[in-house]
Amino acid sequence: MIKIGVVGGTGYTGVELLRLLAAHPHAQVVAITSRGEAGVKVGDYFPSLRGRFDLAFSDPASAPLKGCDCVFFATPNGVAMGQARALLGAGAKVIDLSADFRLKDQAVWEKWYKVAHAAPELFAEAVYGLPEANRERIRKARLVANPGCYATAVQLALLPLVETGFVDCSTLIADAKSGVSGAGRKAEADLLFAEASDNFKAYAVKGHRHHPEIVESLTSLETFTGKRLGLTFVPHLVPMVRGILATVYARITSEADFQQLFEKRYANEPFVDVLPPGSQPETRWVRGTNQCRIAIHRPFDAGTLVVLAVEDNLVKGAAGQAIQNMNLMFGLPETEGLGQVAVVP
Amino acid sequence: MIKIGVVGGTGYTGVELLRLLAAHPHAQVVAITSRGEAGVKVGDYFPSLRGRFDLAFSDPASAPLKGCDCVFFATPNGVAMGQARALLGAGAKVIDLSADFRLKDQAVWEKWYKVAHAAPELFAEAVYGLPEANRERIRKARLVANPGCYATAVQLALLPLVETGFVDCSTLIADAKSGVSGAGRKAEADLLFAEASDNFKAYAVKGHRHHPEIVESLTSLETFTGKRLGLTFVPHLVPMVRGILATVYARITSEADFQQLFEKRYANEPFVDVLPPGSQPETRWVRGTNQCRIAIHRPFDAGTLVVLAVEDNLVKGAAGQAIQNMNLMFGLPETEGLGQVAVVP
Amino acid sequence: MIKIGVVGGTGYTGVELLRLLAAHPHAQVVAITSRGEAGVKVGDYFPSLRGRFDLAFSDPASAPLKGCDCVFFATPNGVAMGQARALLGAGAKVIDLSADFRLKDQAVWEKWYKVAHAAPELFAEAVYGLPEANRERIRKARLVANPGCYATAVQLALLPLVETGFVDCSTLIADAKSGVSGAGRKAEADLLFAEASDNFKAYAVKGHRHHPEIVESLTSLETFTGKRLGLTFVPHLVPMVRGILATVYARITSEADFQQLFEKRYANEPFVDVLPPGSQPETRWVRGTNQCRIAIHRPFDAGTLVVLAVEDNLVKGAAGQAIQNMNLMFGLPETEGLGQVAVVP
Amino acid sequence: MIKIGVVGGTGYTGVELLRLLAAHPHAQVVAITSRGEAGVKVGDYFPSLRGRFDLAFSDPASAPLKGCDCVFFATPNGVAMGQARALLGAGAKVIDLSADFRLKDQAVWEKWYKVAHAAPELFAEAVYGLPEANRERIRKARLVANPGCYATAVQLALLPLVETGFVDCSTLIADAKSGVSGAGRKAEADLLFAEASDNFKAYAVKGHRHHPEIVESLTSLETFTGKRLGLTFVPHLVPMVRGILATVYARITSEADFQQLFEKRYANEPFVDVLPPGSQPETRWVRGTNQCRIAIHRPFDAGTLVVLAVEDNLVKGAAGQAIQNMNLMFGLPETEGLGQVAVVP
Repeated sequence: MIKIGVVGGTGYTGVELLRLLAAHPHAQVVAITSRGEAGVKVGDYFPSLRGRFDLAFSDPASAPLKGCDCVFFATPNGVAMGQARALLGAGAKVIDLSADFRLKDQAVWEKWYKVAHAAPELFAEAVYGLPEANRERIRKARLVANPGCYATAVQLALLPLVETGFVDCSTLIADAKSGVSGAGRKAEADLLFAEASDNFKAYAVKGHRHHPEIVESLTSLETFTGKRLGLTFVPHLVPMVRGILATVYARITSEADFQQLFEKRYANEPFVDVLPPGSQPETRWVRGTNQCRIAIHRPFDAGTLVVLAVEDNLVKGAAGQAIQNMNLMFGLPETEGLGQVAVVP
Repeated sequence: MIKIGVVGGTGYTGVELLRLLAAHPHAQVVAITSRGEAGVKVGDYFPSLRGRFDLAFSDPASAPLKGCDCVFFATPNGVAMGQARALLGAGAKVIDLSADFRLKDQAVWEKWYKVAHAAPELFAEAVYGLPEANRERIRKARLVANPGCYATAVQLALLPLVETGFVDCSTLIADAKSGVSGAGRKAEADLLFAEASDNFKAYAVKGHRHHPEIVESLTSLETFTGKRLGLTFVPHLVPMVRGILATVYARITSEADFQQLFEKRYANEPFVDVLPPGSQPETRWVRGTNQCRIAIHRPFDAGTLVVLAVEDNLVKGAAGQAIQNMNLMFGLPETEGLGQVAVVP
Repeated sequence: MIKIGVVGGTGYTGVELLRLLAAHPHAQVVAITSRGEAGVKVGDYFPSLRGRFDLAFSDPASAPLKGCDCVFFATPNGVAMGQARALLGAGAKVIDLSADFRLKDQAVWEKWYKVAHAAPELFAEAVYGLPEANRERIRKARLVANPGCYATAVQLALLPLVETGFVDCSTLIADAKSGVSGAGRKAEADLLFAEASDNFKAYAVKGHRHHPEIVESLTSLETFTGKRLGLTFVPHLVPMVRGILATVYARITSEADFQQLFEKRYANEPFVDVLPPGSQPETRWVRGTNQCRIAIHRPFDAGTLVVLAVEDNLVKGAAGQAIQNMNLMFGLPETEGLGQVAVVP
Repeated sequence: MIKIGVVGGTGYTGVELLRLLAAHPHAQVVAITSRGEAGVKVGDYFPSLRGRFDLAFSDPASAPLKGCDCVFFATPNGVAMGQARALLGAGAKVIDLSADFRLKDQAVWEKWYKVAHAAPELFAEAVYGLPEANRERIRKARLVANPGCYATAVQLALLPLVETGFVDCSTLIADAKSGVSGAGRKAEADLLFAEASDNFKAYAVKGHRHHPEIVESLTSLETFTGKRLGLTFVPHLVPMVRGILATVYARITSEADFQQLFEKRYANEPFVDVLPPGSQPETRWVRGTNQCRIAIHRPFDAGTLVVLAVEDNLVKGAAGQAIQNMNLMFGLPETEGLGQVAVVP
C-alpha cells in the first residue's frame, strides 16, 4: 500500500481525490489536512464519504506527512511551494494539483501569480504531469506539477496538431467552456447559484493563467513543430457542475487526414478516446471519469479545423490525472483505480 | 459468472444497469435488447459506455435471453408480464424494474395501470424486492418485482414507524421530490429542459401509482402494527437530473426515542444510513450510489415527526436495488459491485 | 411623482425593486444607498439596469433619504430598526423588506433574531404588509413590515382555512420549496452553484424565522377561528433561481366546497389567482410577476386537504408586494406598475 | 389599434409574442391559431397568460386572419410560405418568424431546408428584418423575414467589422452558445431535461441553417467591404432556458480603435448597447428584453479581435425583433412595447 497524505482536503479537488482514492486498491490515506476543519471527521464534513474514511482532518502543522510515500497538494496556489522541499527531503513524492510548479520560467510565473515564488530551485526538477506528453519523465519524477483543467483539455486537443505541420500554430483559437466547480469551493458572489444558474458568460478574456501554461508546455515539447505558438484562449462559465468542452479552431496549412492523425497519436493512450468522425462529444460522456474524448471536424465551407475535446475538470482535469501520475510514479498500472464509468444521465 | 440479459437497454434504468454491471465482478452481460436500436453497438448509442461492452443491442425477438441466468426488465410497464413466464420456465431468474409485479391485488393493479394483466398467476410468486423488508424471501425468489423509486424512499422512511406503535398510521404524509430522470427517457414536452428547468411543481396530486404500491407493501408486512395505512402522497418535480428526497410527516401518538428506533432498525442494513441527529440530507450525498440516507427531526413546537430520506432514484430507486436483489438471489455478498462513492460536487 | 429612496440597493430584493420601480409611472427614485458601492453608477453595478437609472449608489450616511416620500429598506435584518424613527419623523413613509418589524412580540423577535431590538416602540405602529389580510390598515400606515417570502405564500394558502372552521388548525403542515435567490446575495459556500445545483435538500428543519411570523400573523387576525395554530413548517432549497411552491396539508374536520371557499375569499384580490380544479401550478407561471396562484386538491383516499401556492419570492414575496403596499399607502391603484406578464419559458 | 393575428401560438416564440403583445399599447390580438389546441382558451394553455387574453386558439383554417392588419407566423418552417401570398393580397402585413423568407437564393434555401419552396416569387419582395442593417426597407415592407436567433447575435457582432476594412473577412469564427429554448418546444429526447441539464455540447458542427443566412445577409449589404465572407460557425447547447452568447473571433488586418468603431456604429440604435471596455456580458443582462449587449476585447498576446454579443434568443432573437419590425412597418416608435427590464437574478 502507498501511504498517502492529502494536503487541503476540503475543496473540490480534495473531495474528488478522496472519492477516487477510496476505490484505489493500493492507496492508503493516512492524513488529510485542513486548517479550518482540523479534528472534524472526514465523513462528517463530506457525508458522501461516510463509512469510507475513519480519519479526521488533521492540522497541517502536525499532520504526519513526512511519513507518507506520496503527498497530494489540493490547496490554493502558494501552499505547495512552501512545503515541497521538506517533503521531498523526507523521501515523499509530491504531486501538486495547484499551479505552483506548472511553469518553468520564474518571471512568467511571478507575473501571473503575483507573488514571489518560494522554491524556484524546484522548477527544474518538477515534471509537468501530462502523461500523454511526458509519460517517461513522470515515471521518474519526485515532484509532479499536475496540469490545469483547461490546460489539459486544450493540450490534448492540440498535441497532434502542434507535433505535425498541418496547421498554422500562430493563430490558434481555444474557446473553452467549463462547469462552475472549476472555480473551486470559494464563497464568492459570482459563483452563487443565483448568479451562475440560467446564465452564460465569458470571463478572464483579457488573460487566464492557463494561457501561459499551455503555451509554455506545448512549445517546450521536443516534438513541437512550430516557431511560435499564437493562441487566443477564451474561457466561459457554463451553468453545470462539472465538465469542460474545449472547441479548438486551427487554420489548415496543408491537407492531411486529421481523423487518422489523432487516432494514431492516441492509439495507446488509455484515457484519450478519439471518437468516430461526426461525433459531437458531451461533457456528461466523461462525468466522473478520467477520460478525455475528442472529435475532429471539418465544417462546411472553411479551411478551418475544429477539434472538440471533453473532460471532467475534476478528474482528468485534476484529481484523476493526479492519480494517473501517482500510478506512473509508483510503477503501478497506469489505469489502476481509474476505471469509473461515466454517470449518465 | 452470472450470464445476464437486459431487456430494454436504452432507457435510464437500462443505461444505469449497464454502468453498474460493468463494474460487477460476477456479471457477464450477454444480451441487451432494444427494438428500436437493434444492431447498434451499445458504445455507439451510449458513448459513456465506449470500451465497456462489445455487444450490440439485439432484437427482443431473437435475443438469447433463455440462456441467461438472470434477466432484468428495464422496460415500460406491460412488457415483463408477457415474457416472465417463459423465461422462468427456461430456468432464468427474473428481476422486473417495471411495475408489472409490484402489486398483489390484480384488480388494484388493473385499475392503476389500465390494462389487463397478462400473467396474474405470477402475482403470488413474485417477491417485492425491498431487501430491508423482504430479504429472506428475495433470496429464494425466482421473480422479483423491483420497487418504484418513490416507493423505496418513502417505505424506508416509514418502515421503523409502521412496525412500531408510536405514530398515527392513518394520517401519514409523504411530500416527495424527484429529479427529472425519474420520468424516464420519454420525449414528452413536459420533460423538456425549457419546461422543467428553473421551475418547480407538484404533479399527480390526484393519485400516483406508487401510492397503492406503498400502501399494499407496508400493510402486508407481518410487522405492520396499524389497522389501516392512511397516506397522503404528493410527488414534485425538481429541476435536477437524479435524486429523491422524501419528507415524511407523522403525528406522534406516544413518545419514543425515534433516532434510536431508526438506528436500531437499520443497524445491519448495508445501504441504509441513519444520519446523526440534526442532519439535513442532500440528494447529492447519494448520487450514483445505492445508499439511502435518513434523518429524523422533531421540529419546533409540534407533535409531528419529520423523517427525511434521500436516495438516487436510478440506483437505490431502480438499477442498484435490482443488482442488490440479484446478489441476494444468487447467493453473492449483498454489496457486491455496489461500492460506488457519491459524486460530489 | 413619489420621491423614493432605496436603502441597500445591491442585494436581490434591491435590484428587483429597481427593476419594478423603473416601470412604475409614479415613482421617481432619488437615492439608492450602498455602503460598499457608494459612488458606483447603478447601471455599472447592474448592467441589466443600464440606461434606466442615472443615479450612482450613495453612502447611507449622506444619502438624501429624509427628503423622500417613501423609503424602502432592502437591507439585512437590523438596519431598518435603527433608521425608521428618524425617517418617519422627517415625514417619510417606510416600507421595510427586512424582518425588523414583522413580529409584534419583542421577546419572540429577540429570541429569533438574536439581537436587542433598537426600536421596540414602533412595533405597535408597524403594520404587517399582507394586503390580502390587512389592506385597510396598510392604507393608513406610515411604517409597513413587508412579509417574508415563505410567510406570504403559506399565509395565502392558509387564510381561507384559518378564517373558517373546516380544518384542524392545530396540525397544519407547510412543506415549502424555494429557489436559491431567497437566501439573498450572500457569498456563502452552501449557496454556490456547485453546491446547490443538481441537488435538493431541506434546511432549517429545526425552526425557520418565518414560522413565528406566520403563526403570529394568522392568530392575530380578527377572523382567526382556531384556538391555537399548530404548524409544522419545513423549507427546502430548489435548484432554481426564483420561485416558491408551498404545499400545505390540512386535516379536514368538516366537509366544505374548498374550491368555492378559496374562489370567494380571493374573488376581488388582484394578485391572488385561484386556479381551476385539478390545476398543478408551476413556479414559472408567476416568474417575474406579483401573482400568487393557488390550487386546491383532495387527493386519493384521504381526509387531507392539499393546497398548492406559487409565487415569485422576489416579487409577491418581496419587492412586488412592497410596491403593492406603497400603492396602497399613497392612494394609487393597487396594481400600478405591477402588470408584468410571467416570463415563460 | 393594430389588429393582429398570430399563426402558431403554442410554441416558444408564440407565447413570447403574446407576452410582449399583452404589454403593447397599440396591439390588439384578434386571432391566435393552433391546429392541436383549437378551442382551448389561451389562458388555460398558458396559465402565465391567465387574465391577459380572452381568446381561445382558433383553427388555422377558419381563423379571421385576412381581416388582420398584421400577421405573425410563429410556426415551424414551411407554413408561412403557403399562406403569405393570400394574406398580403388581403391587405395584411406579414412578419414571418420562421425561416421561409430568410434567404434570397432559392437553390440555397431548398438545399438547406430540403423542401421545394412554395412561394419563390416572394423572395424578392421579402425584406430581411434586421433593423440595424435594413431599417428603411423594413419601414416600407409588406413581408418581413424575421432573422434567426443566432443570425441576429452573430451579425450584430460582425456588422461594424464587415462594413469596414480592419479584419480578415475570409477567416471569421463565430463560436455561439444558446439556451435550450432555441430549439423550440419539440418533444425530442435530446432536449429533455435529463439529457441537456448539467451537460454541454456542440451541435450541427457540420453546418447549421443560420450559416447561409448570416453569409448571404452580410455579403448582400451595400456596405460589405470584403470579397468573400468566410465564416466558421459552431453552435453549442447551454443548460439554460434563454439566452445566446456569440464569441466572435476575427484576425486583425489593420489597426483601429475597435471600441470606438462599435460605439459609433451603434450610437443611435435603441436595442444595441456597446458596453464599456473590459466588459464581459452575461446572458441574464438581457433576459426577457430586446437588447443586444456587445463587448470588444483584444486578448493577451494576439492579433485576434474578440467580440462578445449577448441577446435573449426569444426576444431580440425572435419575438421582440418581430415587434420591433412591426413598429417600423406601422410607423410607430421603434421601441413601443419593448421597454422591459431584464429579470435579474
